[in-house]
Amino acid sequence: MIKKIFFLLVTLFLFVSCKKSDALIAPSSDTAQSETGIIGDPLPSWNKGALKSDIIAYVEKVTKKGSPDFIPIEDRIATFDNDGTLWAEKPYVQELFAFYRVQKMVEAKPELAKKQPFKAVVEKDKSYFEKGGDKALIELVAATHTGMTEDEFEASVAEFYKNAKYPGKNVPVKQIRYQPQLELLNYLRANGFKTYIVTGGTIEVVRGISQDFYGVPKNQVVGTSFKYKYDPAKNAIQREPALNHFNDKEEKPAGIQLHIGQRPVFACGNEGGGGDIAMLEYSQGNKYPSFQLLVNHNDSVREYGYQEKDNASLNAAAKNKWHVISMKDDWKNIFTGK
Amino acid sequence: MIKKIFFLLVTLFLFVSCKKSDALIAPSSDTAQSETGIIGDPLPSWNKGALKSDIIAYVEKVTKKGSPDFIPIEDRIATFDNDGTLWAEKPYVQELFAFYRVQKMVEAKPELAKKQPFKAVVEKDKSYFEKGGDKALIELVAATHTGMTEDEFEASVAEFYKNAKYPGKNVPVKQIRYQPQLELLNYLRANGFKTYIVTGGTIEVVRGISQDFYGVPKNQVVGTSFKYKYDPAKNAIQREPALNHFNDKEEKPAGIQLHIGQRPVFACGNEGGGGDIAMLEYSQGNKYPSFQLLVNHNDSVREYGYQEKDNASLNAAAKNKWHVISMKDDWKNIFTGK
Repeated sequence: MIKKIFFLLVTLFLFVSCKKSDALIAPSSDTAQSETGIIGDPLPSWNKGALKSDIIAYVEKVTKKGSPDFIPIEDRIATFDNDGTLWAEKPYVQELFAFYRVQKMVEAKPELAKKQPFKAVVEKDKSYFEKGGDKALIELVAATHTGMTEDEFEASVAEFYKNAKYPGKNVPVKQIRYQPQLELLNYLRANGFKTYIVTGGTIEVVRGISQDFYGVPKNQVVGTSFKYKYDPAKNAIQREPALNHFNDKEEKPAGIQLHIGQRPVFACGNEGGGGDIAMLEYSQGNKYPSFQLLVNHNDSVREYGYQEKDNASLNAAAKNKWHVISMKDDWKNIFTGK
Repeated sequence: MIKKIFFLLVTLFLFVSCKKSDALIAPSSDTAQSETGIIGDPLPSWNKGALKSDIIAYVEKVTKKGSPDFIPIEDRIATFDNDGTLWAEKPYVQELFAFYRVQKMVEAKPELAKKQPFKAVVEKDKSYFEKGGDKALIELVAATHTGMTEDEFEASVAEFYKNAKYPGKNVPVKQIRYQPQLELLNYLRANGFKTYIVTGGTIEVVRGISQDFYGVPKNQVVGTSFKYKYDPAKNAIQREPALNHFNDKEEKPAGIQLHIGQRPVFACGNEGGGGDIAMLEYSQGNKYPSFQLLVNHNDSVREYGYQEKDNASLNAAAKNKWHVISMKDDWKNIFTGK
């Protein structure tokens, strides 16, 4: 029964189905190796064109010793949004995790199904969340992500990822990562950049896969967090149901300052919810030459076609001369497919 | 006049004068090199004995492949307190910085001298801070560390460190670092540990020197912080006068969780204010073999002799079988002297 509810729930959300892209294998090691350890074309899933050339030209100029644009290695900070930037966000994986938690919690304590926000999830009451906006979403996340120790929560995150499938595609969530972005992360790291994920998602849910999915260690994830309270009796951290930091929009620079302590020189986000405009602006205020990149979700065949109503991110990109990734034109492959 | 007040201020605090230790040169590179890149004795400023042997035995067992105690490299997290653990804390450098800021602020706006907490500093009213405790200290720190942009604040931190002398010794603050601890940090890093500073001090004041003084990058500093607010008009972060996180005692595990996202396996603090007990306990709850280390300030000749009234840290160490550093007996040299 619960399984059925859960299945209905995830199908509640509409997805534009898309063809599975060809699996793309990481650059093989049998060709000539460059100084950076990257072999041949560092960005094989990016189509040739102005954008790809601009990325490579930027990385080359800022890493060339003696160049007037040279950036010392400790200042090569690159920040990437996650949802819609490194993997698909239709729906958010965070949402799938929250539903998974509702399922588990209602299984353990069936009377929860009569209480909000569980009730809305169980009864597929989409309007509850539509009306409630961010507040209702945070309420759902708080109800399902707190009230336990950190160790317990992380075990539940690990369990979720083990079996989670992405709706519409029926593939493990790992396969909804964008292959071109994995290549870009690798390329930046090979050139001495420290890569960070700066996500609106909750920090531990992203840390649960950051190393495995993206090669980003836990301490290089900046995200939304709840209050922690150390409990000496348990020798454990208790997760409290109070929001500590909601890492979206203008809170992203604040999260970056707290966790990283430096402005990024390279920042990448996506259009869709206006969540990355402040981060890209902030990186542009760097004293070093900087690079801003924005994913445009314009490929409704291979990915999902969607736009902001007010077009805020693309307008900001045009105004500030940021680089825009046309998924349709710039990416040869989209998903990792493995 | 201001200079005189400032001079009186810093002499207000009593220090036990100590002999400058011999300058210690880092291991030279002309002897045989080990696998880790460390040459000969990795801890030359540590006297031979049980403690030094235990540290080395621990590091060797947890880094040996195939050992039942082996710790994967991504879980080799080492956390160090700063004041009294990596450098002297009589007085706190943070305090010197706050006085420096008072001096600068009163120079720019003399009427501030009539307002608290500036008044207490200018009038050398020690009782104001004694009576006020942590609250008064935070008030002073808030008044001198906030109300400006992050970029302005960091410039003022850099300016402070350029000329700051440590009272009582009349040496640059860099010279009050503990040489044995620098060797320990290097030794751990050479064995794949990621080293973090987890300080009660404010995060940017420590980040201002963490790389240069300790080889610890900015993003590996966890500390006390104030609220940040991104100001799009300035494209800058404004420092707000509200405390965000006071990273001491039981708040240290919470700070570790937020910034690092993992329990440390190696944790080092000091007795003096009971500030590190929770961090050491927390690391001991690690699923991997862990190591806890506590600096005992028992060397009134070469450093400063002081003790907690309730002996809480040393009691916790005895109860939990933590390793205690007797500065008097375990350290051949104390200060870097350069």
